[in-house]
Amino acid sequence: MAKRALVFLAPGAEEMEAVISIDVLRRGGIDVTVAGLPDSNLVACSRGVNIKPDISISEASSKGPFDVVVLPGGLGGSKALSESKEVGQLIKDQEKAGRWTAAICAAPTALKAHGTYVGKNLTSYPAMEAQLAEGGQYNYKQDAVVVDGNLITSRGPGTAFDFALTIVDKLNGKEKASEVAKAMLLSY
Amino acid sequence: MAKRALVFLAPGAEEMEAVISIDVLRRGGIDVTVAGLPDSNLVACSRGVNIKPDISISEASSKGPFDVVVLPGGLGGSKALSESKEVGQLIKDQEKAGRWTAAICAAPTALKAHGTYVGKNLTSYPAMEAQLAEGGQYNYKQDAVVVDGNLITSRGPGTAFDFALTIVDKLNGKEKASEVAKAMLLSY
Repeated sequence: MAKRALVFLAPGAEEMEAVISIDVLRRGGIDVTVAGLPDSNLVACSRGVNIKPDISISEASSKGPFDVVVLPGGLGGSKALSESKEVGQLIKDQEKAGRWTAAICAAPTALKAHGTYVGKNLTSYPAMEAQLAEGGQYNYKQDAVVVDGNLITSRGPGTAFDFALTIVDKLNGKEKASEVAKAMLLSY
Repeated sequence: MAKRALVFLAPGAEEMEAVISIDVLRRGGIDVTVAGLPDSNLVACSRGVNIKPDISISEASSKGPFDVVVLPGGLGGSKALSESKEVGQLIKDQEKAGRWTAAICAAPTALKAHGTYVGKNLTSYPAMEAQLAEGGQYNYKQDAVVVDGNLITSRGPGTAFDFALTIVDKLNGKEKASEVAKAMLLSY
């Protein structure tokens, strides 16, 4: 059985981070479902690319479990992920069950908004460092990709390939991630 | 007046190459229009991401001139670009007028299919080298990004950021490209 991923897609999501995650995971043999917020209608991303999700976030809640849930960044997108009860519940379910959660750029702020993964090492887009470090719930790192337990976080568009390849590595092994990287003319 | 770009989006286009081009050019202050083939309905890209173009390819033909036309890769997408008379005419118009054309991954094969940019240095996804080198119309290079006259070509997903930043550089200057790169946590 293929591993399963759920990628959240909210208005204002950073489309490169969303699409690199979806595409690289599918190249890595992962069965990816794209869940739209608030529903499955066309989503206007941060730089005006309009993407059609596979299902709505409420449908997603009944289609689990997912081996990983992925939170792309973008300011508007991350705010929507922070405010969504369904997203919060899905992240809490991942944490409780020891399944993977992966967030990039501004999206790690949604982990904090939902009170999840407290005590973990994480990173984010540099501009969100103060917000995430405040209160001491997290141990902020400045690495391109940070893995702590079942949490994967990363920094922005320029680290999105490494972020997605790390997810492939954790779900399907380093050899698969390296093979996917090579076909994209990258190394992992 | 902002510089204008037309990005072709055909079924089977590599969605990372398309979205990185659109997003980075918009970050670089370029007015980007996404033209769908065969029309402006939802386009199913190579790894199943569904993107809504801004206009149809036939509308695009009457909305020029564009400072650059951009051809994302993907096998299916490149085949559709190779077979489209409208795409061929738009590329020929660019070449004749000394405006920019940019193609990545498998898409440089469409330049050859339309008999354009003969005699130029170019590159592509490595698997297309033989097809492009055959017949001697082009001087094949293996660099990540190749600029020759008003033609920009590049190799694949792993070189897509550099490809898009090079377009920003040529249209709006190196300083702008560097600024866009920095905000994405890359360098240019």
